[in-house]
Amino acid sequence: MKHGGDLISYADYYQGELIDFSSNINPLGPPEGLKRELINSFNTLISYPDIQYRYLRKAISEYLKCNIENVIVGNGAVEIINNIIHLFKRVIIFIPSFSEYEDRARVFGKEVLKLNYLEDFSLDLENLEENMMEGDLLVLGNPNNPTGLRIEIEELKKAYEIVRAKGGFLLLDEAFFEFCPEDYDSIDIFSDEDFKGVGIIRAATKFFALPGIRLGYACISKDMVEEYKKIELPWSVNALADCAGRYIFNCKDYIDKSKRYIEAERKFLLEELSKIEGIKVYTTHTNYILIKLLNWDEEFVFYKFLKDGLVVRKCSSFDALDKSYIRVAIKDRDKNLRLIKSFKELERL
Amino acid sequence: MKHGGDLISYADYYQGELIDFSSNINPLGPPEGLKRELINSFNTLISYPDIQYRYLRKAISEYLKCNIENVIVGNGAVEIINNIIHLFKRVIIFIPSFSEYEDRARVFGKEVLKLNYLEDFSLDLENLEENMMEGDLLVLGNPNNPTGLRIEIEELKKAYEIVRAKGGFLLLDEAFFEFCPEDYDSIDIFSDEDFKGVGIIRAATKFFALPGIRLGYACISKDMVEEYKKIELPWSVNALADCAGRYIFNCKDYIDKSKRYIEAERKFLLEELSKIEGIKVYTTHTNYILIKLLNWDEEFVFYKFLKDGLVVRKCSSFDALDKSYIRVAIKDRDKNLRLIKSFKELERL
Repeated sequence: MKHGGDLISYADYYQGELIDFSSNINPLGPPEGLKRELINSFNTLISYPDIQYRYLRKAISEYLKCNIENVIVGNGAVEIINNIIHLFKRVIIFIPSFSEYEDRARVFGKEVLKLNYLEDFSLDLENLEENMMEGDLLVLGNPNNPTGLRIEIEELKKAYEIVRAKGGFLLLDEAFFEFCPEDYDSIDIFSDEDFKGVGIIRAATKFFALPGIRLGYACISKDMVEEYKKIELPWSVNALADCAGRYIFNCKDYIDKSKRYIEAERKFLLEELSKIEGIKVYTTHTNYILIKLLNWDEEFVFYKFLKDGLVVRKCSSFDALDKSYIRVAIKDRDKNLRLIKSFKELERL
Repeated sequence: MKHGGDLISYADYYQGELIDFSSNINPLGPPEGLKRELINSFNTLISYPDIQYRYLRKAISEYLKCNIENVIVGNGAVEIINNIIHLFKRVIIFIPSFSEYEDRARVFGKEVLKLNYLEDFSLDLENLEENMMEGDLLVLGNPNNPTGLRIEIEELKKAYEIVRAKGGFLLLDEAFFEFCPEDYDSIDIFSDEDFKGVGIIRAATKFFALPGIRLGYACISKDMVEEYKKIELPWSVNALADCAGRYIFNCKDYIDKSKRYIEAERKFLLEELSKIEGIKVYTTHTNYILIKLLNWDEEFVFYKFLKDGLVVRKCSSFDALDKSYIRVAIKDRDKNLRLIKSFKELERL
């Protein structure tokens, strides 16, 4: 199982509705009013979406506070990752990370260099500097999946320097950006450089709780936008995703409320989980938590939790992690309490 | 302008709503009840679509009368075309045809061999046989865009034989299938061969009047399904497109009504257009008509029609066609009458 969120495959194991701790979606659900907005936009389905997505890209540029000329959109963040990888010869990734970075590179027959995160899952900049070659693409999850760690601002700047010194490109996958503490925004940092040699990908998927709508977007350097346009598929964003994008980024109250909510639940869940014996809980800056199992393997824990109606993410499919890791999403208080209850039962097994 | 349907770019030229004769969509609009269905499916957006699209593929297999194991789905027909082209070394296309066949091949750096249709736009099988090489992919529009011609059943079988003799693959782009007379169904023809070496692509876009929903699907050989799965992007079909697909293929009355409607309007429009002087009207099996302008060029006619509130498709962007061709969609009676009126005015210019 390469990805979370595949509940259909486990529906037979539990009488009742499964709670999905395997995909990392805002527990508050999508912004209020979106349903009404999409109902009113039904007629957009009978035309092709604007092939240039002018209004959507404008809404995104205002949300990101960047120029519309730097904005591209795609069928989920993964399509943008895919297309940018297509444009390079060699891809450097750090592991463990989202499996699609490597998978998409393999699809195009690209050379892939895998470097290990340090033991605390921070970047190994020394190793990066030694291995970075002319024109390489470096893809970094920020925060990284499944570790939940965000790159420190100084580290990020150093990584960028290393990449630029070799005329390479730094692609930041920031699909979980809005869940993070507001200590910095990569868009601010790189707008001074006019995004030269850098791309920052985000998505409606996680924070706006819309994995079904498939809306990814990115702020990238203008010369890369040109290259990107030459290879992207036409009309890759569904017309209702286009409409949704023009609505959700203006939902300021929802955005603030979601940030506060996740911050509080993150604190609560980290504290409660830290009391459980037999697991090591990693610090997280986002809405999921990586856990090392000290006494059991992922299969045992997965099926124990499944019996309780909870689906967690087994992590051995992530390169550099073995069967002793699982990842859990941060959800609403009731569900988080059920997770803790299951962990407490596990503790006794 | 590589594609039709880009009305936003011309909105300033006409006070009032433009009528889009440039994209070839069922004038009856989507099936009744779809809006209600999508409203009821709003909550699917908060989960990832089923990564295997099990229910959707089942609905398609029942509609196509083929096995679910042969069915793949994509973000519009164009994504499936893209991915299948990715799997081959050399692509043969006949021109003029949908520009994306060549464009997608170029994106992947594939060799492209372009052969010309015969003067009546039928297949040049002799030329195909001479040029087909081991393992080539042959992509054919059936009916072809922009010519509107469907391949005769015997020609299709011969083309398949030529392709199979060289261990190649025949990809039929049948995005306009349901508009055609019901003289044959490629699915029937190739199901005897278990779809060995053949793929048949269709879409919700044109016949179900849902270009905004981005739902393409195909029936292909099982070994190709395996190859395809290795390279396709995850969750490429939006959750509401997934729901729509499970609904629309069961709308039998709508399907029948649409077929009869288009048949009648095609007959009417062909007859009326044949009375216009200064144009040559090509026979069509589908819902659009290729027209050769004998006295004007496409620019002149395009802006004359735009002044009347009509957007037609200029065709010089199609390889092998020059500035003396336009393409018009078959729409409802009122709109078709407006088209005829504009042609009658053109006649006098």
